[in-house]
Amino acid sequence: MDIQAFLDLCVGQWFSQRSIYYFQQEKAESHKSELIVEWLERDHTEVFSLCQQYQINSKTTIGAQKITWDTSTDWGKPKQIGSAIIIFIPDVNKPEIGRILRKVGNSNLPAKLGNYSLGEDEALTLTLEDNNNYLEERLSFASPNLRLRTSLTKARNGFSQTAFYSEIRKLPPQAAA
Amino acid sequence: MDIQAFLDLCVGQWFSQRSIYYFQQEKAESHKSELIVEWLERDHTEVFSLCQQYQINSKTTIGAQKITWDTSTDWGKPKQIGSAIIIFIPDVNKPEIGRILRKVGNSNLPAKLGNYSLGEDEALTLTLEDNNNYLEERLSFASPNLRLRTSLTKARNGFSQTAFYSEIRKLPPQAAA
Repeated sequence: MDIQAFLDLCVGQWFSQRSIYYFQQEKAESHKSELIVEWLERDHTEVFSLCQQYQINSKTTIGAQKITWDTSTDWGKPKQIGSAIIIFIPDVNKPEIGRILRKVGNSNLPAKLGNYSLGEDEALTLTLEDNNNYLEERLSFASPNLRLRTSLTKARNGFSQTAFYSEIRKLPPQAAA
Repeated sequence: MDIQAFLDLCVGQWFSQRSIYYFQQEKAESHKSELIVEWLERDHTEVFSLCQQYQINSKTTIGAQKITWDTSTDWGKPKQIGSAIIIFIPDVNKPEIGRILRKVGNSNLPAKLGNYSLGEDEALTLTLEDNNNYLEERLSFASPNLRLRTSLTKARNGFSQTAFYSEIRKLPPQAAA
C-alpha cells in the first residue's frame, strides 16, 4: 500500500471510540465521536491558500486530508465540533516519507509543521513538534472498515497523555447489509 | 534495536493502565494492573519442559518471557492474578521474525503457536491464531520507561475487541529520584 492508497482508505465517515490516559493525574477517560475524513486535491482552494500562507509550493504536495469531528453522540459530555487540515508533502525520492502541515480550523493558532512516515507494516506515523509539545500519532487498518489510532503527547516536562482510538467505518445501509 | 534488546527492555515491573473497547456491546472499560516481566534462558526448567511437551528443540529458541499480572491495585474490580510464558523461536536467517509459543500458566488450555515480527520502526508485533480466534498484539517503547501496547481480538464472526495499554516502569526509589 502506498501513501496515496493509505490516505484514500481513510476517507469516509467513522464512529470513533477514544480512550485517553493522563499520566500526571493517573486518570483514564473514554469518549465517543463522529469523524468525517475528506480528501482535498492540491488545487482545492483551502489547500492552495494554506500553502500560499506558509510559502509552500502547492505543486509539491499530494493534497490534504480534511478531518471534521463531532462529539454530539457522546451524551452527558461537553459537545466539541471542529476540523483540521493536514497537507502532505512527500519526499521527492521516497514518497512514503515526507513533511506535513496541520492547521486546526477556525483557530488563531498557527499551523504546525511535522513529518509523516508510512512503515512497511502499513502503519502511518505522524509527528508534530513545537517549542512546548511533541505529538506522535500512529494509524493502521485492522481491516478496511476498522482503523486503529494511537496518540502520544509529550510536554517539555515528560509524557503527558496517551490516547487510543478504535474507529469503525459508518457504512451506507446497502453496503452494511 | 534487535529482538534480544527489545525483549531485555521489557524486563521489569510495570504499572499498566488498560482501556478496552468491546465492539458488539459498544462498551468501553478501563482497568489497572501490575505487571512483572521476567526473562527465562532457554535452559530454564519451565522453558525446557514446555519445549519438550510441544516437541520444540529448546536450542532453536532464544529463551522466553514470563509475564505475571495482578489487578489487586484496581479497587472495586474483580481481582485477577495470572501468568503466561512466551517462547521465542527466531527464523534462522532473519532473527527479527520468528515463531512464538504461548502458554497461560495454571490453565488446562493447550499452548498456542504464533508469530513475532520486529519492525524497522522498533515495534514488536505478536500474533496468535487458532480455529476460533485471532489475536494481534503490538508493543513499542515511547521511552525506556514507557511502553505502549495495542491488542486486537478477532473472532470467527468479526472483530470483538481492541485494547490499549499505557505501561509505566516502576522504578526503585533511588532510580526514580
